[in-house]
This record gives sequence, C-alpha cells and structure tokens, in this order.
Amino acid sequence: MSGFVSFVSAGPGDPELLTLKAAARLRAADVVLYDDFASGAILDYARAGANLVAVGKRVGRPSAKQEHVNRLLIDYAAAGARVVHLKSGDAGIFGRLEEEIEALQTAGIDYEIIPGVTSACVAAARGIPLTRRHTSRRVQFVTGPDVTGRLPANLNWAALADPESTTVVYMGKRTFPALAAKLIEHGMAPDTPALFAESLGRAQERIVRTTIAKLAEQLAQASAATAAVILFGALAGETL
Amino acid sequence: MSGFVSFVSAGPGDPELLTLKAAARLRAADVVLYDDFASGAILDYARAGANLVAVGKRVGRPSAKQEHVNRLLIDYAAAGARVVHLKSGDAGIFGRLEEEIEALQTAGIDYEIIPGVTSACVAAARGIPLTRRHTSRRVQFVTGPDVTGRLPANLNWAALADPESTTVVYMGKRTFPALAAKLIEHGMAPDTPALFAESLGRAQERIVRTTIAKLAEQLAQASAATAAVILFGALAGETL
Repeated sequence: MSGFVSFVSAGPGDPELLTLKAAARLRAADVVLYDDFASGAILDYARAGANLVAVGKRVGRPSAKQEHVNRLLIDYAAAGARVVHLKSGDAGIFGRLEEEIEALQTAGIDYEIIPGVTSACVAAARGIPLTRRHTSRRVQFVTGPDVTGRLPANLNWAALADPESTTVVYMGKRTFPALAAKLIEHGMAPDTPALFAESLGRAQERIVRTTIAKLAEQLAQASAATAAVILFGALAGETL
Repeated sequence: MSGFVSFVSAGPGDPELLTLKAAARLRAADVVLYDDFASGAILDYARAGANLVAVGKRVGRPSAKQEHVNRLLIDYAAAGARVVHLKSGDAGIFGRLEEEIEALQTAGIDYEIIPGVTSACVAAARGIPLTRRHTSRRVQFVTGPDVTGRLPANLNWAALADPESTTVVYMGKRTFPALAAKLIEHGMAPDTPALFAESLGRAQERIVRTTIAKLAEQLAQASAATAAVILFGALAGETL
C-alpha cells in the first residue's frame, strides 16, 4: 500500500477560486499540509476527520522548515496516506516545489501538481488591467525576497523598470523599498503608478493605488505580517 | 428585470481546472457565449436548456467580430438573461476584455470577471518549472500577435532575450519565427531551450522540447489552427 502526494494550488484566498480538481483532492485527502496563506475557509473542503497540519514558514529557519515539510510528506505517504500539500496561489509560480519534489523522487513516492489561480489574476476582477491589447503586451511576475529574505542581487533591472510592462511582485512587501530604488536608478519615473493589494481575495482585502516612490516610503515603515501583492507599471494607474 | 454578464475564465482546457465559481456561473447561465478555445467538455457544466452561442474569432475581421460579440452581450443582458462569456485561460491575461467592458458600461449593464488558471500554469503539472528559487525569479507572459496578426513592433526585446527569465508566449505559433529572429538579434543564444505545447490540457496535448532556433524553423512551415503556448528560457530545458 503506497501513498500519494498532491501539490494543490489553493488560489488567491477565496475558496470559490479553488479549481474543481483541487476541491476533489481536498475531499479525498487523509492528510492536508497547509501553508500560512493557504488556510482558512479553504480547509473546509477537506473531509471531516482528515488530519490538518499547519506547516507555515513564517517562523524558524527556512531550511529547517523545508526539511521538516519534506519529512512529513514522505512519512505520511509512506504510511499509505493520500497527502495534499496546499500551496497558496499557483503552486508552479514561486511555489518552491523543487526541494519537496526532489525529496519525494528520492523516496520513490508518486506525486502530482494541480495548477491554480495565481494571485495576480485577481487584479482584473477588481477592475485593474494586467494587459491591454494596444499598449501593454507584457506582464511579468517576480519574487520580492531571495532565500535570505533580501532583494535578489541579480534581477534584470532594465526588464523591470519598463512602464509598458505590468509587473507583479509576489511576497514583495519587505523588499519593495530596495526594489523601487533600483527601478528609479534604472530610469523608471518615481511617479510610475503602483498598486498595493493586501490580503487579496480575503474578507480583509485592502487595495491602495499609489506610485512606486510613495509605496516604497510607506513600506519602509510597515510590518510584513500580511500577504501582499504589488503591481506597478502604466496599467497600475488605469481602470479596466 | 435586468440581466448580468459574467466574464468567466475557462482555464487551459481541462474541465476540472475550472474554478468552483466558474462552474457555478455556468450552471446558472441562461446564455453562454464561448470562444474557440473555451469549448468542448467545459460546456457540459452549463445547464440543459441554456443557450450556447459560439463567438469564435478565427474567421472574419476582428473588429466586426468584436462588435458582434458586444452586441450579443448587451442584447441578451438587456433582455434579462444571466449571460456568461467564457474565455480561455485567465480572462485578465490577454483576454481582450476592454472593448466588451466599455460596451457594457456604456449600455449600463452590470458585469463581473471571474479569474482562472492561465495556460502557462499547466507547465509545472507537466514537469516543466516556470520559476526556480535560486536561478529564475522572473516569469513573463507576452502575446504573439498584435491586432493585425503580426508580431508587435515595440516589444521590450532586451527583457525578452533574457535566458534567466521564463517567457511564455500566448497565441505565438504564427509569429514565433519573427520573434526568435529578434531574440537572437538581441543576443539570445539560438540554442536557448524552448518548449512548444499544443492543445495543452486537452486529450490531443502535444509537448515538444527544442530550441528557439529550431522551433522558429519548424513553425515557419506550420499551420496556425491549434492553440499553442510557447515557453523559452533556461528552465524550458529543465525538469521539475
């Protein structure tokens, strides 16, 4: 008897934005490991009696956490359980699947990945265009922090400092002041429209329209406890 | 009695990748307008007796088609119907919502946009990484054709010719030879890994791993009748 691991994309937070496949995997799971931002009402889709295990990464050293998660996935699956690891947004976009998949492959455990709605895609539903037929044909996603929690040193600044692209920064709250400084250094206007979306898709959702310079100033003073998505570029100042 | 229009993201093709919200809107709809690549088994979620209307854009002048779709949306909604316009992938990413929304706003008809799974996000489920923690922190989406069907003249070539970014080209089958020439002209190696995914998420799915130069050569001879997604960059040659 051999278990199985499903990496399930939880979407941006609204339980109704789970895919049908994700909801089916949650209903069938014996064990659900869930991240900090893939929790709440989404877990109601798990069957009564399923083992729900929080594996948030907000505290502790990331590497120790990762080894712990790998261990749990392998142990539960090896014991024959249908295991779901619920990941916020789309698991393939900055979902950090590599280490977990490598651990499963080494242990000889089968797995699958269920795609989902990435957080950026909530923008259109809130009247914020990501693309426009004539003026904005490129949308790009980047992560705010590298593994150390700081802004990565080797991003393509010219690609990011392009107002004709819509750029979405995931997990970027803490590093945005440093990113904005780089963007301005590479020629982006300080008053380029920016949009700060906190707890997108959740009851406490808060969206602020501002500029890259002002947002950098505000975030330099902010705490980093909530999930936030930052959008910038010409379209961040427009309405769909 | 006033109707309502839901722009519903159909996802990449697999009906199970509809969101719960999308399935609910389909079940409740009186009229479903559907695009060429948002059809097939997905339409089974509509209730028996719903009016299913194909509004494909593959034939005819784009502007005439668009006016026709706008007219249908307004006429059905004004008659009190719950109307769904089903869009392939995520409606907010190259979904060309602007004209339709503007027409509805002018006509005073309420609408909503339901986010979905954009086609690129199927990659991870097929073992193709879009991002990697240490080496690839930027993923970007571009459209192949502009409104005239040709490669847009003003794309940010330096941003695209970056092998450390994973680039996904939507609807890019016809224009990829021209795009690849530009990429190589801007310093991208001809043997940069590329991946051609045809009918992604459907029964006839076909994925080919190649290079940008070879893919350009092959596509110069191909017909453009199927939905295809093209990925390129260092990660297109790797396995998750």
